Amino acid sequence: MYEVELKLRADHGDVRERLEAMGAEKLGGVAQADTYYDAPHREFAETDEALRIRRERRTDAMADEDAAETAKVTYKGPLVERESKTREEFETGVDDGETMANVFDGLGFEPAAVVEKEREYFRVDDYTVVLDRVEGLGEFVEVEREAEESELESVREGAAAVLRELDLDPDEQIRTSYLGLLLEKQG
Amino acid sequence: MYEVELKLRADHGDVRERLEAMGAEKLGGVAQADTYYDAPHREFAETDEALRIRRERRTDAMADEDAAETAKVTYKGPLVERESKTREEFETGVDDGETMANVFDGLGFEPAAVVEKEREYFRVDDYTVVLDRVEGLGEFVEVEREAEESELESVREGAAAVLRELDLDPDEQIRTSYLGLLLEKQG
Repeated sequence: MYEVELKLRADHGDVRERLEAMGAEKLGGVAQADTYYDAPHREFAETDEALRIRRERRTDAMADEDAAETAKVTYKGPLVERESKTREEFETGVDDGETMANVFDGLGFEPAAVVEKEREYFRVDDYTVVLDRVEGLGEFVEVEREAEESELESVREGAAAVLRELDLDPDEQIRTSYLGLLLEKQG
Repeated sequence: MYEVELKLRADHGDVRERLEAMGAEKLGGVAQADTYYDAPHREFAETDEALRIRRERRTDAMADEDAAETAKVTYKGPLVERESKTREEFETGVDDGETMANVFDGLGFEPAAVVEKEREYFRVDDYTVVLDRVEGLGEFVEVEREAEESELESVREGAAAVLRELDLDPDEQIRTSYLGLLLEKQG
């Protein structure tokens, strides 16, 4: 399974108005703190891989009982399709994010950067529209969907169509990750 | 926190009789399949580290509702005290052992060996006595307890005393891991 994702900078006020006009379903919100790791044996910046531990808590008011922090470990493989940032991705929940961090530390992986953001999720057709406010970077919109390899092209076109429905221009797509943008800024 | 562990070969029939005579509390039983990984950047056999994904299900009859498979990832650091095989260890549950295996595979870690065993746990004083029947190796007994660095010596002596209570000889301790014993046997 692959993840197709189109992302661009966009003022959330305008996008919210469009989502409301379209009757998009609001799915919830979370606060995430992502720790990205450098590998001891590869230059992830060159191979375009990523290893991440994500700590997350829900921020939507309906979810008081789910407000406990959860953690996931994610490995993103090298890009297989540059245009839409498509790659293989493996992700599983872990009971204790701090212990998982100790495992990677023991293996020689080192924290490279931390990306903190607040996300809101909306459903538009088969796609998820994500409003991200990223610490130190500002506001972004992402359109994403999982896809089989055989349907990558049509799913990518569908994601572009969703962006146009939101009065956004798919040509303004940013292919650099938040991590990359933060590292560029700190440059 | 460190784990002190003394292990030796022992016929389970005799040890069970001693445990019963001592009134030891039986804590339960599990079946475990452990996949050990080779690292792409270090020779774990030389550094004496280990990276493992353990899939486990309970085998005691009382635990039908807990019989679903669980998975854990464990990193064992280099030995800090050879005598009792004491080392730093980090372990956390993961939602999906297969996905965690895919993460390590993506990072370049390769499965080196699989150790399958059935374990039964007993409580003796502050120690856990473990009866292990290991696929391809036979029957073993382990005595283990967690310890702070300051109490390592006394905890190790206490573990030896438990072995003597079980009519076993601490001098027969085997310092080679099941993985190591299997690799020796295959070697």
